[in-house]
Amino acid sequence: MKRMFNFGAGPAMLPLPVLQKVQEELLDWHGSGTSVMEMSHRGKHFTSILAEAKDDLRTLLVIPENYEILFLQGGATAQFAAVPLNLLGDKEKADYILTGYWSKKAIAEGKRFANVHIAASSESSGFTQAPLDWMLSDDAAYVHYTANETIHGVEFPEIPDVGDRTLVADMSSNMLSRPFDIKKFGLVYAGAQKNIGPAGLTLAIVRKDLAGKASAHTPTVLDYQAQIEADSCYNTPATFAIYVAGLVFKWLLQEGGLVAMEQKNIKKAQMLYDYIDNSSLYTNPVEKAFRSRMNVPFRLKNENLNDLFLNEAKEKGLIELKGHRAVGGMRASIYNAMPLEGVVALIDFMKEFANRHA
Amino acid sequence: MKRMFNFGAGPAMLPLPVLQKVQEELLDWHGSGTSVMEMSHRGKHFTSILAEAKDDLRTLLVIPENYEILFLQGGATAQFAAVPLNLLGDKEKADYILTGYWSKKAIAEGKRFANVHIAASSESSGFTQAPLDWMLSDDAAYVHYTANETIHGVEFPEIPDVGDRTLVADMSSNMLSRPFDIKKFGLVYAGAQKNIGPAGLTLAIVRKDLAGKASAHTPTVLDYQAQIEADSCYNTPATFAIYVAGLVFKWLLQEGGLVAMEQKNIKKAQMLYDYIDNSSLYTNPVEKAFRSRMNVPFRLKNENLNDLFLNEAKEKGLIELKGHRAVGGMRASIYNAMPLEGVVALIDFMKEFANRHA
Repeated sequence: MKRMFNFGAGPAMLPLPVLQKVQEELLDWHGSGTSVMEMSHRGKHFTSILAEAKDDLRTLLVIPENYEILFLQGGATAQFAAVPLNLLGDKEKADYILTGYWSKKAIAEGKRFANVHIAASSESSGFTQAPLDWMLSDDAAYVHYTANETIHGVEFPEIPDVGDRTLVADMSSNMLSRPFDIKKFGLVYAGAQKNIGPAGLTLAIVRKDLAGKASAHTPTVLDYQAQIEADSCYNTPATFAIYVAGLVFKWLLQEGGLVAMEQKNIKKAQMLYDYIDNSSLYTNPVEKAFRSRMNVPFRLKNENLNDLFLNEAKEKGLIELKGHRAVGGMRASIYNAMPLEGVVALIDFMKEFANRHA
Repeated sequence: MKRMFNFGAGPAMLPLPVLQKVQEELLDWHGSGTSVMEMSHRGKHFTSILAEAKDDLRTLLVIPENYEILFLQGGATAQFAAVPLNLLGDKEKADYILTGYWSKKAIAEGKRFANVHIAASSESSGFTQAPLDWMLSDDAAYVHYTANETIHGVEFPEIPDVGDRTLVADMSSNMLSRPFDIKKFGLVYAGAQKNIGPAGLTLAIVRKDLAGKASAHTPTVLDYQAQIEADSCYNTPATFAIYVAGLVFKWLLQEGGLVAMEQKNIKKAQMLYDYIDNSSLYTNPVEKAFRSRMNVPFRLKNENLNDLFLNEAKEKGLIELKGHRAVGGMRASIYNAMPLEGVVALIDFMKEFANRHA
């Protein structure tokens, strides 16, 4: 078996040791005589899996007890509705920051439930940076931003300062890629399928005092308070996906936690951006200060070579490099599970390809 | 490794050949060099997995083209909200049939979005049968019933005749256990974790003309029309769970389809009910015509023996026999994946236990 280096934006690569563990335990978890897929979500085996996953995540992100960890379903897309449904309370307005494709999606769904105020936008730059001028409201229930724009390759280098407003972040594509101070947030959420685990699982970390005010129109599965009270089991949770996520958390702890992961991610991204910037064939349009460590979009100056590039890359075991249809070009997603060797192999190929087509 | 006979109500046993295939392909699906968990939901590999799963299900259930198969998230619990949100249209009223714990849940959530009329109830019988007297409305948007009550062990032997009204069924616990005529329904839905696949996946089969009328309060991930247009990929679907479900569909086809599966299920249920009815220690309260083929609740006449029964059963590899906390006693869930040998082993143990405690 030859494992590919998979640069897909998500569902994305998982750490090989995690997949190997899943394979080893698939028919018989810890001598239980059943697969994790077959376990009651109320039984002692799965209850222990869920509790360990939560404990390990609490350790990794240093999450205080006044925040609840929820394992939900429906992806970030479901959260685009759940956020206003849960957090508006007696307010009508919410501030959103527009930084690219995914914040645009969050805003479109948000408008269906809230009076959305675009408090800042980088649209005029072509989404090549985070916006510099912010006009936050004083009567908004929360401020929502997209911590990393997977398609445009733009990432907030720091957590924005919004004073004592309630800050909400879609961290789907950079959650667990670096340490961050959860205490600066009211809520963060993330689809699992980049850095956390299999698609079909959604992680939400919510400050408990913000829950319990959901609108009457909220389907109960999306009500944070109902899920807090049921320890993520108001409905049957995505048990197997939670198990895999738990193994990812253990892998992260073994690798040295999020500080070590951040150093590795900085190194991978730096190598790739440095090569692109110094090459004659490739370009990346994003302002350096806002370049994503997770998703590196780039273009070939001669776009007639795109198909050849993708085909030859695939022959080298470098797959899923095609850019999102919304922006074209190429994109290398280099999440936690992408080893340094994968980035080195990509750069080696890009160099060799550029030499042949200089 | 000793595989247990797992009588849990769900997440439940999966067919061993399916689990073995999952294990075999876990690191490298069909020479792709990636796990199914790592595949883009838009890529050709997963697209083929999704298309095959849909085709196989269409074959198994003989689903005509005017019905769409949707692979969703959030379980039947999310559908309890999605059904009124999608199907009320310009009506306010919906008819519900009350037959036990799960229809009660559907009704409670339905009431948050619709004017719910209980058109029939078997509550006065203690939920030991399906209701005989129905008072259907003429101005209701749909009639909702629970085809099999997992906790009370009550199953509709036939599809109820509601004239030209739109019939909706929660088939979470008997979907794929027998053939049925989908053309009698506007919508059927089922959490996957009994007969379909891993928890975190929800199957919905909807007549296409009923979609497209969702209320303005519907989170888009729950809007059938949005999911129909996106082929279940409006948000990233539960890719790995869909893959496992697809393998279950192939296993069902190899086993002879739903006619053969029904025969096997009749035999398993008949053996167990016959033994219970003829025993001196065990009882089942459900009217014979309405007994579930999937979930067989029973009680020991001497309830002081409950813990001993459960402990000794476990030693024999017969697990998850404890009844739901709402009703107590015991319950043997005998879904498609429970082999005949499992039921024989259970009856053998029950006999032997009864002999010792006569």
